[in-house]
Amino acid sequence: MAQPALRLGLVGGGPGSFIGPVHRMAACLDGRFVLAAGAFSRDIAKSQSQAVAWGLAADRAYDGIKAMLADERQRDDGIQAVAIATPNDSHFAIAKAAIEAGLPVICDKPMTATLAEAEALAPIVAASGRPFALTYTYTGYAMIREARARVADGTIGRVRKIMVDYPQGWLADAIEDRNTQASWRTDPDRAGQGGAIGDIGVHAFQLAEYVAGLRVEELVADLPRVVPGRRLDDDCNILLRFEGKVPGVLTASQIATGERNGLRLRVYGEKGGLEWDHDAPGKLILRWPDARTEILHSGAPGLHLTAQRATRLPSGHPEGFIEAFATLYAGFADAIAGETAALDGLLPGIGDGLRSMRFIDLAARSHEARAWLPFSGGAA
Amino acid sequence: MAQPALRLGLVGGGPGSFIGPVHRMAACLDGRFVLAAGAFSRDIAKSQSQAVAWGLAADRAYDGIKAMLADERQRDDGIQAVAIATPNDSHFAIAKAAIEAGLPVICDKPMTATLAEAEALAPIVAASGRPFALTYTYTGYAMIREARARVADGTIGRVRKIMVDYPQGWLADAIEDRNTQASWRTDPDRAGQGGAIGDIGVHAFQLAEYVAGLRVEELVADLPRVVPGRRLDDDCNILLRFEGKVPGVLTASQIATGERNGLRLRVYGEKGGLEWDHDAPGKLILRWPDARTEILHSGAPGLHLTAQRATRLPSGHPEGFIEAFATLYAGFADAIAGETAALDGLLPGIGDGLRSMRFIDLAARSHEARAWLPFSGGAA
Amino acid sequence: MAQPALRLGLVGGGPGSFIGPVHRMAACLDGRFVLAAGAFSRDIAKSQSQAVAWGLAADRAYDGIKAMLADERQRDDGIQAVAIATPNDSHFAIAKAAIEAGLPVICDKPMTATLAEAEALAPIVAASGRPFALTYTYTGYAMIREARARVADGTIGRVRKIMVDYPQGWLADAIEDRNTQASWRTDPDRAGQGGAIGDIGVHAFQLAEYVAGLRVEELVADLPRVVPGRRLDDDCNILLRFEGKVPGVLTASQIATGERNGLRLRVYGEKGGLEWDHDAPGKLILRWPDARTEILHSGAPGLHLTAQRATRLPSGHPEGFIEAFATLYAGFADAIAGETAALDGLLPGIGDGLRSMRFIDLAARSHEARAWLPFSGGAA
Amino acid sequence: MAQPALRLGLVGGGPGSFIGPVHRMAACLDGRFVLAAGAFSRDIAKSQSQAVAWGLAADRAYDGIKAMLADERQRDDGIQAVAIATPNDSHFAIAKAAIEAGLPVICDKPMTATLAEAEALAPIVAASGRPFALTYTYTGYAMIREARARVADGTIGRVRKIMVDYPQGWLADAIEDRNTQASWRTDPDRAGQGGAIGDIGVHAFQLAEYVAGLRVEELVADLPRVVPGRRLDDDCNILLRFEGKVPGVLTASQIATGERNGLRLRVYGEKGGLEWDHDAPGKLILRWPDARTEILHSGAPGLHLTAQRATRLPSGHPEGFIEAFATLYAGFADAIAGETAALDGLLPGIGDGLRSMRFIDLAARSHEARAWLPFSGGAA
Repeated sequence: MAQPALRLGLVGGGPGSFIGPVHRMAACLDGRFVLAAGAFSRDIAKSQSQAVAWGLAADRAYDGIKAMLADERQRDDGIQAVAIATPNDSHFAIAKAAIEAGLPVICDKPMTATLAEAEALAPIVAASGRPFALTYTYTGYAMIREARARVADGTIGRVRKIMVDYPQGWLADAIEDRNTQASWRTDPDRAGQGGAIGDIGVHAFQLAEYVAGLRVEELVADLPRVVPGRRLDDDCNILLRFEGKVPGVLTASQIATGERNGLRLRVYGEKGGLEWDHDAPGKLILRWPDARTEILHSGAPGLHLTAQRATRLPSGHPEGFIEAFATLYAGFADAIAGETAALDGLLPGIGDGLRSMRFIDLAARSHEARAWLPFSGGAA
Repeated sequence: MAQPALRLGLVGGGPGSFIGPVHRMAACLDGRFVLAAGAFSRDIAKSQSQAVAWGLAADRAYDGIKAMLADERQRDDGIQAVAIATPNDSHFAIAKAAIEAGLPVICDKPMTATLAEAEALAPIVAASGRPFALTYTYTGYAMIREARARVADGTIGRVRKIMVDYPQGWLADAIEDRNTQASWRTDPDRAGQGGAIGDIGVHAFQLAEYVAGLRVEELVADLPRVVPGRRLDDDCNILLRFEGKVPGVLTASQIATGERNGLRLRVYGEKGGLEWDHDAPGKLILRWPDARTEILHSGAPGLHLTAQRATRLPSGHPEGFIEAFATLYAGFADAIAGETAALDGLLPGIGDGLRSMRFIDLAARSHEARAWLPFSGGAA
Repeated sequence: MAQPALRLGLVGGGPGSFIGPVHRMAACLDGRFVLAAGAFSRDIAKSQSQAVAWGLAADRAYDGIKAMLADERQRDDGIQAVAIATPNDSHFAIAKAAIEAGLPVICDKPMTATLAEAEALAPIVAASGRPFALTYTYTGYAMIREARARVADGTIGRVRKIMVDYPQGWLADAIEDRNTQASWRTDPDRAGQGGAIGDIGVHAFQLAEYVAGLRVEELVADLPRVVPGRRLDDDCNILLRFEGKVPGVLTASQIATGERNGLRLRVYGEKGGLEWDHDAPGKLILRWPDARTEILHSGAPGLHLTAQRATRLPSGHPEGFIEAFATLYAGFADAIAGETAALDGLLPGIGDGLRSMRFIDLAARSHEARAWLPFSGGAA
Repeated sequence: MAQPALRLGLVGGGPGSFIGPVHRMAACLDGRFVLAAGAFSRDIAKSQSQAVAWGLAADRAYDGIKAMLADERQRDDGIQAVAIATPNDSHFAIAKAAIEAGLPVICDKPMTATLAEAEALAPIVAASGRPFALTYTYTGYAMIREARARVADGTIGRVRKIMVDYPQGWLADAIEDRNTQASWRTDPDRAGQGGAIGDIGVHAFQLAEYVAGLRVEELVADLPRVVPGRRLDDDCNILLRFEGKVPGVLTASQIATGERNGLRLRVYGEKGGLEWDHDAPGKLILRWPDARTEILHSGAPGLHLTAQRATRLPSGHPEGFIEAFATLYAGFADAIAGETAALDGLLPGIGDGLRSMRFIDLAARSHEARAWLPFSGGAA
């Protein structure tokens, strides 16, 4: 823990950004990173203004990744890692540039705008040998890590059913003409291949595989565009079969009026079931055949080490989204420090990213074909 | 309310029966019926023993519907209605006999063992003009009636997404060799065409249409047999499209280890969303675009009349499964009394039964074909 | 279970009654009683009208307990037990008459209007040797019985803290001029010595002692009259010390705006804590030192026999207030049948009634004196 | 927001500290402070080691407040504010020294170990004119601020009942021989006058007054020492009367086995009731006379400005204890910047501290006297 904090360069995070400030808070929370520079906006004046607001000198603000990489590598105190918090269509180019500059990268999901970009990025990352992390935020929650550990240690027995549901309501109306976040997320030119599936469906998909330890092998998807005029899906309903023919259901919606951000996962095994709900993220519910329900709490003694490491406070002191995000940053710092053993596969990376893009692509094709389709590329 | 109680003859309800005693309690709770006779078991001794246990004279116990109908019609105080609480494979014959004897019938779901039986029964019921009710229990809950009324009155706007989930865990193990209820429900010769879908999936299906006021037009179903050796599905996952292309998802499972009986319905409209969960059946959750959540409670003032009529106690005094069942019996009594106006379509009947059997049949075919299939017979 | 149903005579339950119909439903639910006669109103016409509504002959309706006792004892099919569901001021006279007529009595709480009446009634009941039950409804819930059993068997260790809270909001406004229930409950001439404390505080008091197995020895009470003009307390806050100096807190309120009927009990022991909440009466929450929370569900296997006997349905099928009340009636029937062993002290009786009246009296004196006072009469 | 971050010196926070790291994270989260120096331990080696762990140069580590103040005032980049996160017995001396050095102070609760110290500190703070903040963490939660605003704007009408309950279980066993936190909190020489009341009871007291906007005028307290051998109360039960004779109940316990940190506040007014529970801190429950329950969520539109300012993320993205703490730090920074108008009395300060110490003192005297006692010193 006594390593010096790493200097981070953030791409994105300008005025109106939702996730940019989360990156800043999460990176710094545990003292593993300091924000050192940023290409916060393509408008240099806005980028500089954001830099000052965050306590940086104006000369650490840039108008793009290339300028940032070029200048920062000249400095003794130049950035040591790059965070990507821009709309999806720019992820590939930024990630490629940063990796080719030899810097570790932590990137928002979905990894890229298209499967083709993902397939192009994967070998670049592999060749670089540098850490590449994806901010699948929910994997940073202690009780998700406990859930994963409980499945892995056989607590609930062989997994037989997986259900994941992610309802949001914020796109129930056609607000894309007046809301920055909605605007790019509903625009295929900026969001890429997926609407709701790309924005939140991939969270659900990645989380299901992450916790259950099983991979999707087949699916049939229904990806409606509910709000008239939408060019991308705003609702997402998918039947799945995981390895071993295990049935699953994945639903995600951005037109579930009144829902906030209710990601909920259930995994049922031969011996028990488990449930996690983002509405109460510090709890993990276990259900037993004798109809007892057991609730485990984050921060409590007796949890798996991977869950204990993902909290900062004793039980009863809620931690939330920023803390979960910070746990990913802590894992990213560990990875940079070469402490991959400590990670135990916990930090989502290029493999998760590539699978997620394949998932989006496959679901879109299944929707078009109105048919079950196999998940190819099982190796990644 | 001052009508004299009707004399009911119950078929089923012998030793080990789950739903038979529910019929007795529900029928009598509101004083609308008295249990007057019964064919509680095909074993006359068991039938008589059950009669005595329930305070009847032994001569009001029979070994089958035919004997009961034959004797009771000779009595001045003979039965005036028949309740069917037997395994599915006998529903058709019992219902047919009772209806042809001119008696109103209240029958467990699924209505029949097969779609063919359902299609044969429908015209018989229609021709008789006698009330035929199906105990889709959940439609007797006050807050389901409130939900239905809220959709109908436009509270949540045009419906755009429907989700219904019904997890149970009691068949997570292969208990059919030692549990009466499990035994017949997993046996196609007694349960009929559907396993989990026939036992609980039809509840979910009927409830979704009942509350949302929309009919399923298309579906793709996955009906796994999770526990080795099962001859019928024990898990059930279905993507739906309702009228107007409204997307929906229906899941039901009897291998969701640790779950008890968690039927949960969500309907999202343009203006709001609603949720009902059998774990807290006296609540109806409304969600609004400004992220406010509102909870309505059964027994409270301000509910729709149909909901008010479905409770017996002021708010804060929980009513449960037996009361919901009793509300169906009260509706059945109203129907017998000719007060159909009071029912406002609230009492599930032959139409629901026929649609449910078509649903089971269609889902089975979709599962086999691994394909989306259209729901035919829209008229029923 | 095959005993013939007992014939019950109900005093109270006329038009506008809340608890009268509950008595009827609860008595009959399990087939242990049939409603045979009643003094439903002091107005004979109203009494007869109620009789007919409930399927009785008009000649089984009376205008008071004396007439009912006089006539019914002449009949072969006369009543075998009396239920009292009238305002508090008449409990004593009715109970005394019924007991002296040799009939078992089941009576609403509070047992009497005054402590003096309670002290007069106790020896009468004792001398009669006839069963006398009090409808402390909450003791009929399965999970209260489980809680009691868990304390008794040492699951949570030596009890060290007891908290019971009973908020209602229905008297938040001065509705006594227009609401029958409010009218008599806020009138000392009809309700007796206690307002909120007599109506609901005694439930809380009795439940705490019933579950924790400890008796109150000392208290300091604050009994405000919050709504201007009230002649009795409408809010009730009491610090307690139970046997062994165990601290406790009892609160009850009828001016807790928006609350429905939220009785909630918590008992903390050396090894664990338990919680029960009437808002979800089928659950019992256990808390453990390692911060695990465990939820037990009514109807589940593995519960104590006393809890199992208090349900009719498998887990996941909610039972409510009427069923809890019916469980008291079942116990009353058992007591009449002499099966007191089966009761294991579960059925509240004269002792609970006398203690409750002492509690009301003591709290009122403590409130006046603004002082801690000892609970005398420990023997009862 | 573009002000440069203030340089903070932290006293406390050495190895084993719970709250010290919270100060660091909270101070830095919003970029309003940077940790610049610290007297993390009285052992200079430990202090230096902590400094390095947190990315500071070893020469910014001190072994006490005096050394820190002496050295830091010599530096151009010396500290601009002091945070106190030590056991209670040292608060007074540290705060006095910092204030007399002209620095703003943010201090843990309870403010001091004794009422005498509090009464000595108050005029010192007043004379200095420097900001003095107390980390009553719960006042930093958005939904507590919403609750306060809702009471103030009349949403629930005139307040008529206040209930606050704070159960913990971590001192259910006598762990003080082996747990650092327990050790000093149960030792009157280090904790001061109060045990549970001083550690958590003051939170409950301050929160009740903060939200309800009413001051306690009278109380009767029961402060048992439940675990044998304890020299301070470990359980705390108090009846209150607020201004206008409004009744209240305050309970706090550290022997409530299995409870984590469940602070829960309810305020009932003439028109509605509100409830906040630390187990779900992003929700505020409103209850209405028609038995509707309404839940407001942090981050949602439509909340009061003071609540909106206390969140960083949109609704559905949980924030927790660290974020609430950070909101206090943001208020402290505003106060230092002279933006007191922005605070609207939201930041707890010397007045809250003095009242809290009077509360502890009064409760202890009431407990001894077994009597109601008036709250004097109403001016503060």
